[in-house]
Amino acid sequence: MYEEVVEYIDKNLETSLEWLKGLVRFPTVAAKGQSLPETANMVEALLKGAGLETKQHHITGAPVVTGWLDVGAKRTLMFYDHYDVQPAEPLDLWESDPFEPEIRGERIYGRGVADNKGDTTTRIAVLKAFKETGTDLPVNIKFVVEGEEEIGSVHLPEFTEKNHHFLKADGGIWEFGGAGVDGVQEAWLGLKGIFFVELEVELLSRNVHSSLACILPAPAWRLLQAVNSLKDESNKILIDGFYDGMRPLTDAELAAISKVDLREEALQKAYGVEEFLHGMEGIELKKAYYGDPTCNICGLTSGYQGKGSMTVLPAKASVKIDFRLVEGMHPDDVHKKLRKHLDDHGFSDVRITYFEGYPAAKTPVDHPFVSIVEKANRKVFGDLVIHVTSPGSGPLYLFNEHVPMVSVGCSDHDSRAHSPNESIVIENFRKAQHRIVWIMDEMSRW
Amino acid sequence: MYEEVVEYIDKNLETSLEWLKGLVRFPTVAAKGQSLPETANMVEALLKGAGLETKQHHITGAPVVTGWLDVGAKRTLMFYDHYDVQPAEPLDLWESDPFEPEIRGERIYGRGVADNKGDTTTRIAVLKAFKETGTDLPVNIKFVVEGEEEIGSVHLPEFTEKNHHFLKADGGIWEFGGAGVDGVQEAWLGLKGIFFVELEVELLSRNVHSSLACILPAPAWRLLQAVNSLKDESNKILIDGFYDGMRPLTDAELAAISKVDLREEALQKAYGVEEFLHGMEGIELKKAYYGDPTCNICGLTSGYQGKGSMTVLPAKASVKIDFRLVEGMHPDDVHKKLRKHLDDHGFSDVRITYFEGYPAAKTPVDHPFVSIVEKANRKVFGDLVIHVTSPGSGPLYLFNEHVPMVSVGCSDHDSRAHSPNESIVIENFRKAQHRIVWIMDEMSRW
Repeated sequence: MYEEVVEYIDKNLETSLEWLKGLVRFPTVAAKGQSLPETANMVEALLKGAGLETKQHHITGAPVVTGWLDVGAKRTLMFYDHYDVQPAEPLDLWESDPFEPEIRGERIYGRGVADNKGDTTTRIAVLKAFKETGTDLPVNIKFVVEGEEEIGSVHLPEFTEKNHHFLKADGGIWEFGGAGVDGVQEAWLGLKGIFFVELEVELLSRNVHSSLACILPAPAWRLLQAVNSLKDESNKILIDGFYDGMRPLTDAELAAISKVDLREEALQKAYGVEEFLHGMEGIELKKAYYGDPTCNICGLTSGYQGKGSMTVLPAKASVKIDFRLVEGMHPDDVHKKLRKHLDDHGFSDVRITYFEGYPAAKTPVDHPFVSIVEKANRKVFGDLVIHVTSPGSGPLYLFNEHVPMVSVGCSDHDSRAHSPNESIVIENFRKAQHRIVWIMDEMSRW
Repeated sequence: MYEEVVEYIDKNLETSLEWLKGLVRFPTVAAKGQSLPETANMVEALLKGAGLETKQHHITGAPVVTGWLDVGAKRTLMFYDHYDVQPAEPLDLWESDPFEPEIRGERIYGRGVADNKGDTTTRIAVLKAFKETGTDLPVNIKFVVEGEEEIGSVHLPEFTEKNHHFLKADGGIWEFGGAGVDGVQEAWLGLKGIFFVELEVELLSRNVHSSLACILPAPAWRLLQAVNSLKDESNKILIDGFYDGMRPLTDAELAAISKVDLREEALQKAYGVEEFLHGMEGIELKKAYYGDPTCNICGLTSGYQGKGSMTVLPAKASVKIDFRLVEGMHPDDVHKKLRKHLDDHGFSDVRITYFEGYPAAKTPVDHPFVSIVEKANRKVFGDLVIHVTSPGSGPLYLFNEHVPMVSVGCSDHDSRAHSPNESIVIENFRKAQHRIVWIMDEMSRW
């Protein structure tokens, strides 16, 4: 029925790749506030060009772009995407300019091609194909494309609170997804929450000659001792009450994860490790993957970081930490507990800067929309591994009470989201467009 | 008797300042191997211009420049200086270009003006004044000017082993010194040793999305735990046997330090602290200052250090640490003990890079040359505080068996050696030249 649409997609792959390249050329690093309005404008123009009505919502921070097309269908399909990207650092590890997309072999490289400018493009390209072939859409369409996902969607609640009605839909496709380490497609039904902070200790008015370390307080040592008090060597987080209220995986979820093969060996090879944390494997590893909160060091900074030696006692030291949260935990609560922990352990001189935070959310594994995505995927890619949640984060909690979301996309295990040499396989970019067509088709018979 | 020399010095202050500016314009950062031969050439040219015979010794690394003038006097005065400087980072904290000297008010600013291009210049300028006024030198002169002091004089032993005869002298002036926080001149009779290392943990083949912290090993956490195992919260170094063989301060040294006023309040103000490490004060503070080894963090590096948040699990993490050593300790020995400590505590995955190291050394407080410097100083500056050792380091151990060394110079408490906005007071630069004239004069009557 939609053969003409699918054919149009294939014939116009160059065009959709050009759109993607155009988006990647904007260095839309939300953490640095770069190119946000320009990229929002391009996204809006692409949505308009695909026949949707559009609006830019000017909330605090980067604008949210919405697009919609009400064709009077029974079902409505929503897409959640974001046009911002992670910082490209460390720049020296990129083989090509992160903001000048380059095709090498079967892949296209650039910051954001995987997360999530590529997926955003596939979704708009499908709508364009329906429009240009004059094919009737089988479902109503809604797009929410924000510009601050990579800094914790800090202002998105301003949009969702004012636009409850817009968030209603029968099913939604979340921003990311793709092939696992064995090439099999994966769908993600949930996202962990996040609490991102910077801790800083500043004890001297300036950097001092390190010989004075015998009599002056040392910010870097204080920071190290403070951070070290947060976790024990078995990886248990020692903040008092940290695990309180945390919801364990349900029986249905445990059943679902027992069916998943995490492909441990292949994963180990991909990340260059001989074993996982604490030698975990099998069901223990899976429970950690889907069910554990984390306390991870994203960055450490103090003093001299150049070549060779420099004997300095640095005036300050800081660490960036992200906590991944599971259902039942809230970042504001963890924030309070972290402050109390530091104070209780004598570290009131450690400053906390709270960058971003939101709770976890999940779509139930037995929701009918999950089967719809599974059936559509089978027509294009074959098997689909169902993950009850991603270990990563996203503001799913803002949407999930209005629309069941499933995350599938055009990445693969080597896409290096958040890392240098981010890329996607162009063939996946093409087939991901087909899958959306068949999701619409399956939805129309629901 | 030397009034004409002193007058020449004052009249030609502009010229000696121009020499200093010329030296500072070379960014002679030994840690980066920058401008070393060029600066050595300029130092040699200045020595030659002041009437000395000269030689460049091409050892591994930066050349050592020597200068000498044998006038057949009974006594010989040696100068030890270095033409290399510390890195200028962090560059954004400099108010003017570190390598384009700038006079603001009574001070001249630039990397190396205090440590130790300024002192090098004063010493050569004095010889020039004797030559240009046709005044007979009352002592024989020797200069040793090396180019790797700031990276631990790593190759200087190659020079000193081959040139034992050259190191013989009756008294020597070491590279640094100046006015304390109360404006009173200070002399330093010893230097602590140093052991500078970088510790690195690399556990992943690349930076990874931080959501995987639930299953992957974390290099930054490993490093933190390893470093934290080196010291307890009371600042005691926990490396097994670290303090073995360490010589405590002698009774004569304790008597000498009891006479020193460290000007605690002024020091606290200078470094912006309300109290010293662990609230130390009085004799306890002085014992730490003159007699304690240290384990100081000079730099911490891992992951994302830019603005805002980036959720990454960094593939590696590293720390630069300098240990200051007192007499009786040896860096090679500490190196072995550090490796053993890390292995014993399960941190064999922590790599050690050994950058530089040498032992401590001191000139006895009751040596006659100390009184000579004291008397000469009184004629120009007034009182002289005698410190039995500096808390800082230098390769004094290579010279001390051949020549008693005292360190006096043209810096002051606000000179910010090793830090941004390094500077000296021009008036001190002038008077330091006078003091050298009177040291020669006093020596001739010894």
